[in-house]
Amino acid sequence: MNAMSFTPPPADKKRLEQGAEFTPRFDEKGLVTTVVTESETGRLLMVAHMNAEALALTLQTGIAHYWSRSRKSLWKKGETSGNMQRVHAIETDCDQDVLHLKVHVEGDGVSCHTGAHSCFYRQVELVDGQPRLVAHEHLSQK
Amino acid sequence: MNAMSFTPPPADKKRLEQGAEFTPRFDEKGLVTTVVTESETGRLLMVAHMNAEALALTLQTGIAHYWSRSRKSLWKKGETSGNMQRVHAIETDCDQDVLHLKVHVEGDGVSCHTGAHSCFYRQVELVDGQPRLVAHEHLSQK
Repeated sequence: MNAMSFTPPPADKKRLEQGAEFTPRFDEKGLVTTVVTESETGRLLMVAHMNAEALALTLQTGIAHYWSRSRKSLWKKGETSGNMQRVHAIETDCDQDVLHLKVHVEGDGVSCHTGAHSCFYRQVELVDGQPRLVAHEHLSQK
Repeated sequence: MNAMSFTPPPADKKRLEQGAEFTPRFDEKGLVTTVVTESETGRLLMVAHMNAEALALTLQTGIAHYWSRSRKSLWKKGETSGNMQRVHAIETDCDQDVLHLKVHVEGDGVSCHTGAHSCFYRQVELVDGQPRLVAHEHLSQK
């Protein structure tokens, strides 16, 4: 495979926001926030981070790769569980500091390490004016 | 209104991931990443950040408030444009470092400062092995 490189963001805001140049804005840690939704349902599955290497591998292989901030290593999501994410589309936002992956999840369709389909399995509710969490998805006993 | 405070995250991972305590994990800048989707369609609209004050105001008023990193100020989204975001639900993820707002956008339904419905109006395509952006939503001439 040829090396894939990413051009630094242009200073010109119009070029950044309306141009055809893909110039992802990696943060001071070299990471870009990545929102992952399920291509079949549009449902929000997880939010992760990519460095340039993970982004290049994702584009080149069509399988989502991330940077694990906790393990400080490249992370081919689902490599051990079988729940790999096949990428159907990648979008970026106006100022190119967020990516959006639309993915099909292989295996049993789980995206969260807790065993939940989506990492967003709890909703914030107000009880006596104070926020509490209510689970709306059963968590498997992992 | 009574002051709303947020408890620091517990050291115990099981409590953090499976408990009913809402303990948002603000980062070293005091911010939590917030993914915003449209309640009617599930479509991804934008990604923003909240500090504790913005989150408390959002919970108390039902209108989305953020922290503007560029302006370094509290930001009641849509206050001038009329495109305020009425919050239908708030979710958090397994380790509580991301929030998910499901919102109804008032006014003409625009969420992006470019005039686009969603900030995610461009898709990454590979052309001769190199990524390019293709717009899939017309941008108004703002």
